Amino acid sequence: MRFLMISWIGLVVQSAFSQDCKHLKGQWVNEMGSALIIEAVQKEGKIIGQYASSTGVDGKIFPLSGWVNQSEEHPKEVNISFMVQWEGYGSITSWTGYCLISDGGPQIKTIWNLVRSGKEYDWERIITNSSTFTVEKQK
Amino acid sequence: MRFLMISWIGLVVQSAFSQDCKHLKGQWVNEMGSALIIEAVQKEGKIIGQYASSTGVDGKIFPLSGWVNQSEEHPKEVNISFMVQWEGYGSITSWTGYCLISDGGPQIKTIWNLVRSGKEYDWERIITNSSTFTVEKQK
Amino acid sequence: MRFLMISWIGLVVQSAFSQDCKHLKGQWVNEMGSALIIEAVQKEGKIIGQYASSTGVDGKIFPLSGWVNQSEEHPKEVNISFMVQWEGYGSITSWTGYCLISDGGPQIKTIWNLVRSGKEYDWERIITNSSTFTVEKQK
Amino acid sequence: MRFLMISWIGLVVQSAFSQDCKHLKGQWVNEMGSALIIEAVQKEGKIIGQYASSTGVDGKIFPLSGWVNQSEEHPKEVNISFMVQWEGYGSITSWTGYCLISDGGPQIKTIWNLVRSGKEYDWERIITNSSTFTVEKQK
Repeated sequence: MRFLMISWIGLVVQSAFSQDCKHLKGQWVNEMGSALIIEAVQKEGKIIGQYASSTGVDGKIFPLSGWVNQSEEHPKEVNISFMVQWEGYGSITSWTGYCLISDGGPQIKTIWNLVRSGKEYDWERIITNSSTFTVEKQK
Repeated sequence: MRFLMISWIGLVVQSAFSQDCKHLKGQWVNEMGSALIIEAVQKEGKIIGQYASSTGVDGKIFPLSGWVNQSEEHPKEVNISFMVQWEGYGSITSWTGYCLISDGGPQIKTIWNLVRSGKEYDWERIITNSSTFTVEKQK
Repeated sequence: MRFLMISWIGLVVQSAFSQDCKHLKGQWVNEMGSALIIEAVQKEGKIIGQYASSTGVDGKIFPLSGWVNQSEEHPKEVNISFMVQWEGYGSITSWTGYCLISDGGPQIKTIWNLVRSGKEYDWERIITNSSTFTVEKQK
Repeated sequence: MRFLMISWIGLVVQSAFSQDCKHLKGQWVNEMGSALIIEAVQKEGKIIGQYASSTGVDGKIFPLSGWVNQSEEHPKEVNISFMVQWEGYGSITSWTGYCLISDGGPQIKTIWNLVRSGKEYDWERIITNSSTFTVEKQK
């Protein structure tokens, strides 16, 4: 009985530590507290997941789709891009960036563009900024 | 018999002219001659298509996925975002923008970000620029 | 007398045609009808000028400062960046791009970022888009 | 005499601590170790300074010019934009963003665009990324 319990704890710990640029599956959090949940990275690089923004969308969770890609010459340089359609809000955000190993652990550094409606001028419709996602700490 | 032929021509013409911000399905071309082929816009706004870049990828055609979105308050303002994973090249591009009716017909105006590998510094990996897609003229 | 008049016309025409990527001084206009007026490009590349936006600032004209730069290896590739502080509006725009000779004449192609105040969230404060400036036609 | 010395120390300390979004003058450092040195903010908002990039320019220091701006309605929201012409390298960078007070002190959060020469395609010439500048700690 005790053996089983220890094994189970071991699996959880292994899972927590194996989330990195080569194993993107898991939960990532940005500076604002928004959560990027990567549920699967398919063989060809397709990302399936969910996004929980900390602001602006009443706490709703949205489906997310994206891609990971690496070149053969630079297999350690992991590029990533993903999008969320904010259903019911009329807007869409796309993030574009790369995963790096920093002193504090793996980071997904992105620049994003968000397009929306209802502005006085069309040229006001695209906003840009950056987000860095890190591995959510286990409690 | 004659009636049927005319009807058929009518359908073709209608199809050619009906490609606009509400009917995105069809082929769009940007200033560089790259083709954005929207094969379907699903009920919830998901875009399925292909992208044929005029430069940098040896004439290959790549699958494309994306989203269209509109708010209820501004149903005529069509927002769009789509991505291409440049399989075999290690890079990914995401386009973000909106569809407008200009004097010359419908336009999809976008800002894009492209992330890639093999640069001296990581901060060099994301490039940005703009592309405007118009309806490819019928020959 | 007639000779003098012709000479004078000749000078005007020469001046109109000499505005290109090597001689940026003059008036440029973008797709929206905003005017970029380059009054001087100083020896080290500093730009002095004015900007007249067609929207959003009540027709006022603002001072503009910027830079031109070229590398020794690629002297024909002219890079340009300029900024306008929208005094009284709290915002600032910076344009970044390059000058190219297209079929229709010289073009300054830019991506711009505009930062402003009074938004619900700070992450909404930077908008981005593109502008292409061409030589204003002589009437 | 002792009184004077204490006063002088007091002024230095006050100066060190008063660098914030309302008093931008001083040295700021980004995540990469590059230094933004704001020497003066003139009455109308013009910034005079220098920039020492930690990468790509052989340790040289370059002059920097820029603007600060605030609207009357939101005087605490400080917008900033500045540019550097990388003389001898052919490129120019423009930063656009805002100053915020975070838990760790004042931050200048920026998105930047860098335009350069010598690329295979012109559409590759503009790169983008983000930089956050914080107050350099006193030693």
